[in-house]
Amino acid sequence: MTYCVGMVLDKGLVLMSDTRTNSGVDNISVFRKMFHWSVPGERQVVLMTAGNLATTQAVISQLEERNKTPHERRPSILEAPTMFQIATQVGRLLRDVIEGRQDGGMQGEGPRFTASMIVAGQIKDMEPRLFMIYPEGNFIEASFDTPFFQIGETKYGRPILLRGYDPKMSFEDAVKLLMVSFDSTLAANLSVGLPLDLMVIERDRFEPLHQRRILASDPYFKSISSSWSEALRQAFHSLPDYSFVQHGEQPEGL
Amino acid sequence: MTYCVGMVLDKGLVLMSDTRTNSGVDNISVFRKMFHWSVPGERQVVLMTAGNLATTQAVISQLEERNKTPHERRPSILEAPTMFQIATQVGRLLRDVIEGRQDGGMQGEGPRFTASMIVAGQIKDMEPRLFMIYPEGNFIEASFDTPFFQIGETKYGRPILLRGYDPKMSFEDAVKLLMVSFDSTLAANLSVGLPLDLMVIERDRFEPLHQRRILASDPYFKSISSSWSEALRQAFHSLPDYSFVQHGEQPEGL
Repeated sequence: MTYCVGMVLDKGLVLMSDTRTNSGVDNISVFRKMFHWSVPGERQVVLMTAGNLATTQAVISQLEERNKTPHERRPSILEAPTMFQIATQVGRLLRDVIEGRQDGGMQGEGPRFTASMIVAGQIKDMEPRLFMIYPEGNFIEASFDTPFFQIGETKYGRPILLRGYDPKMSFEDAVKLLMVSFDSTLAANLSVGLPLDLMVIERDRFEPLHQRRILASDPYFKSISSSWSEALRQAFHSLPDYSFVQHGEQPEGL
Repeated sequence: MTYCVGMVLDKGLVLMSDTRTNSGVDNISVFRKMFHWSVPGERQVVLMTAGNLATTQAVISQLEERNKTPHERRPSILEAPTMFQIATQVGRLLRDVIEGRQDGGMQGEGPRFTASMIVAGQIKDMEPRLFMIYPEGNFIEASFDTPFFQIGETKYGRPILLRGYDPKMSFEDAVKLLMVSFDSTLAANLSVGLPLDLMVIERDRFEPLHQRRILASDPYFKSISSSWSEALRQAFHSLPDYSFVQHGEQPEGL
């Protein structure tokens, strides 16, 4: 499994992904799921992946034209005129890779080798944009009403995002929110694991404002993880108390 | 979908279930998923169900021997000597019903008509016990390390249970904790819906200490729902702030 979140703020984009890949519980490895391309001063594009690793690696390799010798590579992701065209191109590649695998003699076993992706970025003189790409190659774009996307193991970390997100929040608060969301997911699901990759993209600044890998030893992440348990407990105790008397016993039995 | 939680405390058992049943999103209804049997002064047993409604209703009907005329019914759930035997009996019935349906000409479509259940209760001179029954008919029992079970749409509401649960907590706090867990689930998943059924079983008291149906209009549930949003926001802001500077930019690019 995987957990990735991409978020649109008024100030720009914030993205976080885990790095755990597993094939069963006895075969886990660390693979980067966040990829970054940029033309300094003109554009930057970030892609996050969830799903079958061979599929997502094939898509990334083709986007980077790794089938060509290094000096011939001119990834079209760096030349497409709009983010919409980049999302279209990623979607088409993803669908083609998945279909190619499924034709390969494994029919009748239902959908396999699937993957989904989040594409985010900005091109000069246009708005920052955020897309979620489905295995079928189609995609949706984040909007005012749905300003963040999650892929992978999305459920454990969703309630806090729904409640904590605010488009006006600072980048620092957004990073804190993502760390809490990831911490809740890590606590519940073994298939999501540290380290995490973080990238902050400021509007109209065509290189990352901030990027880092958050290791298990990271003091800030550790402090969030332990303070969040305590803060949740306090939040819980601050709620009004339930009273059996106040609410009475129901006259009719169950 | 469904959401049910059963919890063992030092003081007894607390159980909560939703009531939404849906077949697609355009066909939703309210069905009770919590069932209660008792022999006053001697035993009480509660069963909660998730999964295919025809399956769970068939199991409940057979447990209650509804195939017999009312004056001939002597549900064996009221006569089995131990909670373990009750769990065994429920598991066997559940497996038989599911297998019966799957043999009925719907083969080759994979597992359908499945369901899972939580069985909780106490028989005089024995401990309160809590079991989770799988569609295959086998079951597990709650223990010190895993003192609560969830069935149905379990993920959204799990992080707060993991963090808030304490075996020594009062019944009132346990109800509050369950309400927060249900509120998080309701906010994220349309297939879980109000009203909720609540039952509190005190150790060695062989009738419910407290039972009620929590409607959408319930003032306490509404106050939990709104205060929890605010309490979470405050908890979030009480966490240490992230700082780009403190953590530095990583020298190597992504």
